[in-house]
Amino acid sequence: MKKIKVGVLGATGSVGQRFVQLLDGHPWFELGALFASERSANNKYKDEAKWFLPYEMPEEAAEMVVKSVNDAGAGTTENEDIAVMFSALPGSIASEVEKRCVQAGYCVASNVSVYRMEPDVPLLIPEINADHLALVDVQKEKRGWEGFIITNPNCSAIVLTLSLKPLMEYGIKEVRVSTMQAVSGAGYAGVPSMAIMENVIPFIGNEEDKMESEPQKILGTVEGSRIKNAAFTICASCHRVPVMDGHTEAVWVKFEESVSEEEVKKAFKDFTTDIKTPFEPEKPIILREERDRPQPKLDRDAGRGMSVSVGRIRRGRVENEVKYIAEGHNTIRGAAGASILNAEVLVERGYI
Amino acid sequence: MKKIKVGVLGATGSVGQRFVQLLDGHPWFELGALFASERSANNKYKDEAKWFLPYEMPEEAAEMVVKSVNDAGAGTTENEDIAVMFSALPGSIASEVEKRCVQAGYCVASNVSVYRMEPDVPLLIPEINADHLALVDVQKEKRGWEGFIITNPNCSAIVLTLSLKPLMEYGIKEVRVSTMQAVSGAGYAGVPSMAIMENVIPFIGNEEDKMESEPQKILGTVEGSRIKNAAFTICASCHRVPVMDGHTEAVWVKFEESVSEEEVKKAFKDFTTDIKTPFEPEKPIILREERDRPQPKLDRDAGRGMSVSVGRIRRGRVENEVKYIAEGHNTIRGAAGASILNAEVLVERGYI
Amino acid sequence: MKKIKVGVLGATGSVGQRFVQLLDGHPWFELGALFASERSANNKYKDEAKWFLPYEMPEEAAEMVVKSVNDAGAGTTENEDIAVMFSALPGSIASEVEKRCVQAGYCVASNVSVYRMEPDVPLLIPEINADHLALVDVQKEKRGWEGFIITNPNCSAIVLTLSLKPLMEYGIKEVRVSTMQAVSGAGYAGVPSMAIMENVIPFIGNEEDKMESEPQKILGTVEGSRIKNAAFTICASCHRVPVMDGHTEAVWVKFEESVSEEEVKKAFKDFTTDIKTPFEPEKPIILREERDRPQPKLDRDAGRGMSVSVGRIRRGRVENEVKYIAEGHNTIRGAAGASILNAEVLVERGYI
Amino acid sequence: MKKIKVGVLGATGSVGQRFVQLLDGHPWFELGALFASERSANNKYKDEAKWFLPYEMPEEAAEMVVKSVNDAGAGTTENEDIAVMFSALPGSIASEVEKRCVQAGYCVASNVSVYRMEPDVPLLIPEINADHLALVDVQKEKRGWEGFIITNPNCSAIVLTLSLKPLMEYGIKEVRVSTMQAVSGAGYAGVPSMAIMENVIPFIGNEEDKMESEPQKILGTVEGSRIKNAAFTICASCHRVPVMDGHTEAVWVKFEESVSEEEVKKAFKDFTTDIKTPFEPEKPIILREERDRPQPKLDRDAGRGMSVSVGRIRRGRVENEVKYIAEGHNTIRGAAGASILNAEVLVERGYI
Repeated sequence: MKKIKVGVLGATGSVGQRFVQLLDGHPWFELGALFASERSANNKYKDEAKWFLPYEMPEEAAEMVVKSVNDAGAGTTENEDIAVMFSALPGSIASEVEKRCVQAGYCVASNVSVYRMEPDVPLLIPEINADHLALVDVQKEKRGWEGFIITNPNCSAIVLTLSLKPLMEYGIKEVRVSTMQAVSGAGYAGVPSMAIMENVIPFIGNEEDKMESEPQKILGTVEGSRIKNAAFTICASCHRVPVMDGHTEAVWVKFEESVSEEEVKKAFKDFTTDIKTPFEPEKPIILREERDRPQPKLDRDAGRGMSVSVGRIRRGRVENEVKYIAEGHNTIRGAAGASILNAEVLVERGYI
Repeated sequence: MKKIKVGVLGATGSVGQRFVQLLDGHPWFELGALFASERSANNKYKDEAKWFLPYEMPEEAAEMVVKSVNDAGAGTTENEDIAVMFSALPGSIASEVEKRCVQAGYCVASNVSVYRMEPDVPLLIPEINADHLALVDVQKEKRGWEGFIITNPNCSAIVLTLSLKPLMEYGIKEVRVSTMQAVSGAGYAGVPSMAIMENVIPFIGNEEDKMESEPQKILGTVEGSRIKNAAFTICASCHRVPVMDGHTEAVWVKFEESVSEEEVKKAFKDFTTDIKTPFEPEKPIILREERDRPQPKLDRDAGRGMSVSVGRIRRGRVENEVKYIAEGHNTIRGAAGASILNAEVLVERGYI
Repeated sequence: MKKIKVGVLGATGSVGQRFVQLLDGHPWFELGALFASERSANNKYKDEAKWFLPYEMPEEAAEMVVKSVNDAGAGTTENEDIAVMFSALPGSIASEVEKRCVQAGYCVASNVSVYRMEPDVPLLIPEINADHLALVDVQKEKRGWEGFIITNPNCSAIVLTLSLKPLMEYGIKEVRVSTMQAVSGAGYAGVPSMAIMENVIPFIGNEEDKMESEPQKILGTVEGSRIKNAAFTICASCHRVPVMDGHTEAVWVKFEESVSEEEVKKAFKDFTTDIKTPFEPEKPIILREERDRPQPKLDRDAGRGMSVSVGRIRRGRVENEVKYIAEGHNTIRGAAGASILNAEVLVERGYI
Repeated sequence: MKKIKVGVLGATGSVGQRFVQLLDGHPWFELGALFASERSANNKYKDEAKWFLPYEMPEEAAEMVVKSVNDAGAGTTENEDIAVMFSALPGSIASEVEKRCVQAGYCVASNVSVYRMEPDVPLLIPEINADHLALVDVQKEKRGWEGFIITNPNCSAIVLTLSLKPLMEYGIKEVRVSTMQAVSGAGYAGVPSMAIMENVIPFIGNEEDKMESEPQKILGTVEGSRIKNAAFTICASCHRVPVMDGHTEAVWVKFEESVSEEEVKKAFKDFTTDIKTPFEPEKPIILREERDRPQPKLDRDAGRGMSVSVGRIRRGRVENEVKYIAEGHNTIRGAAGASILNAEVLVERGYI
């Protein structure tokens, strides 16, 4: 199979570098273009990206000449053979650039929040809601776009939502979640060491809002040309801790009725997916039985960073409530890896 | 006023060193004896305690000869003039040693958990429940002890409970709390750097049980010769983070009725105490208005480590629920400082 | 004594905040003005400075209205009663602003590097070279300035040089020094957590040059209207480590002749100063005898951050060489505290 | 090729776990037995080893029944088919157990220091001194042992020595080295978080001695039945920093004559090895040209942890001196990986 050419919008940043790393040697995709800000344009990627991932940037990417995001989707012929644009753009310019790319006919698989909650834009975790891809046609028709956009959720929301999916069958009423989030989620310069070293910062801008709204859409059901949100309520408290990668979340789930620890464990264990693409891990959810797991340092790379680990399932003192810990890699499963998995599913289902 | 002589049981450990540090120069108390394990006995404190607090151990303590905990309360005449024994003993031996000291007539102010939940033992946060000292007479009569024991709560429970007190007037129904706890709570060698560096450990032995049971006793009311527990339910999830000192807690309080953010803030702001002793801070509760406070590194030393800081008060999505962040110094307000404050109140009220 | 009014240039940054903190309650000085960038001007300090030091900014400073550095020394009448301008400006604008202030008649006590190596500008560590103040007259005459400028050394150079001073009597031939520097030296946003967490960065821009040149001037002798540099050679390797405050330095000193460990220890112990000002610590150099000290976390606050701690004195395998560890607080003794001490000496000696 | 059975002595500790991890799936070796303390014996490895490496212990090892080190080499028939015993024993028992194993006929590849400096025991870095294996016959003859023992150097010494090898041709006179060492070198519980968090500890027991003596043996030449040490002098200062894995070293090399930066870089670049075994990395020494590399977090895994990275080559101010930074993974290239590479070379050269 001939590889599909893809581009990365915002390729020099924290999530952008993860895209470049994860796409290196991808069996289906190959890098066709790297886009960054105007001032990086026309220079080699190796001269513009301060690579902060271990060892070295992939050789092929290193030698690529960076293009300006202003040219993405702007009719330059050289990008014609690119099918998918992965977007790791800053929120401030994402709206405009992504729209221009979609209008120019690209499929945009975006990690950015701007389009996530639009009623006609799929907010995908493929193991949960690949059927939301039905919105693609709605979107194209409604907006008259040649291409289309799909999105993946906020990094913390992915971890939570994937862990909630198997529990839906028991009837979820309320969810409370307290996060302990890694610094990489804020971008390379996002969290100064003087701010977080030996400290906790109990605030992350807009994070609680996203965690309280995205899961309902993701877990919602397609009804005609729209998604009907899942009905439970989420209340989140979000905090930054001195961890490099991997978000840890303490979750309380209040069910409609009494559910035992064993039922919850079984639901996690039995969770499977019929998706079989390169980035889909063998087990999207891994149940840890040790009393002190999951831990970000030990579990973030499970399933090559694409599995969410859960553990410490225990009955709470409040009636019908179970508490547990969920953990996932915030820049792989929670960002770049999520977008790539989404694109793989597009290929698998013939959208690309 | 002649200073009152005090002893420290378990003086070489993490909390023991805090006792020694905080008692140095105390206006009411002076160190009379330092007790540690048999193998440290008869050597100078400076040779037995690997001092890990900044700069240097207090000179007076440094030159004191350590006594064996086996001799504490065992009838040796030399301790006769000691009035209070502060206990920072390991749980395994605390029960026996503390009992022997009480039988020998000492007042034991203990930071250890073994006696906390006994019905006739005060579990004190003096700003909340100094009236629980009524149990002292019950205890002495019932047990036939010459001395008596009072206890302070678990470090995480103190921070939570102090923050809950002003909210009691609104009718608390349920509390959920997620902790991000400092490593010093586990003792000097308790948490290996390989375990916690750049990591979160979502488990602390017995911590959730303590947090779910102690606050009800502390916030309970004296009814005759016993305490009637406060009626609400607590559900805790406890986690260790790479922080040296200072426990941070995300709290959800579900009230009986709707309570506004402003009412909660006002309750925190208006909280005062009539206790006026050396360790009582000007404000037991400090309300931070910044959106990203309290933080352990910035707020743990507020009120010389004796104030609990609260912030980020906000309505939750669940009906009648408010969420906020509380933070306190775990080895000062949460341990040694709490015991010392308790002993001060004993003096103020004539128990010593 | 009426307090002397002082200003702080660059008051919102990392070192600027230290100035504000250390000047609060100073017995001789009081804050007269806080200067920051144009865009902070006319707002209260509390609204412009993101305070990152523990607890809270001093109340008096909090309510002060920030002035633009463009107005410093620019003839505005309101600053007339300020005698000393402490400078914590970014290097890029320091040259111009400091010059303007000096021309306007202020004494500038600068923590910035731009004027340090000028032949007519004192580079002071008062315990070492208060006699270099003789350059003040040279400077005023040569430049025709109404005011004058004095400087303190680079943070790492101060720690090293103070530790070298007592050893000069033995005849130093070569010095090698390897630093392990705290992140606060780079300013609040200078070192991203993603860069330094669980890592070492073996590079700090221009640091090795400063460490290899400043000590010779500081340890030099006044000869007429100039300083004759000390004659030994320094070779530095500078590294950033995940420490908040406190620079640790491994030092090798090769002497002209054989010097014993005991001689070196004695030289450190016997070092005293005749300076008696508020910021002068009782012991400028503290000799630690423990085998694992000094450590930044334990020793940085010695002498309220103004003492340099030394330890682990041991003969090296190379002939006539002794190695040891030196440690000091980089933003107190190494920056703001150093400037304040310098200004105190100016007052003591009648320059102000 | 039938795989060669190997045992691990001290399999539950920090380095022991690295052996188990690195041997999993090794193309030449397979785990035959895991030895630990008597109290772990007869239980499954998964129940005795608190696995601290990411994700999960290898499945095969997990199910193995741990044997007592007291039985290693003690004549139990079941270990008969084991050819190599890798030793990660605590120093206190290593001497006895290793000796017993050698007498019983095993080849012991030891990471422990006890036998390293014995004149008839090879201290190997195969890229440097595989010819020192000539000592094996000397050893067997002299001691009358049926088996034999080979050792790998101290973790810090390996990194330094490998980097010195290419520079030997220019005539090394003196070496000074300042280390910034990871906590994993001290074993799982070796460095409490309270000791090292946000701190530097400028002392590591016996480390400086090892670094000052081992390299001369390693870089020495075989003369008849003994090694003639290399002639230069080393002076080390060793420090622990808050890094998980990876030792960073600042090195000053004083040459007999002037050597340029380019010559040093070329020597590093041109360094190759004729060893072609599974653990031998493509490049034993990797030259980094960035101004701020190598860094432990970014470079420790280079060559799957078996390469040493060097960078920041620059002339020093002292005559004929060059300084640079070296970095290597302390528990792979510096411990378990080193032993395995040594054993591979034994196989390649027919000793096993």
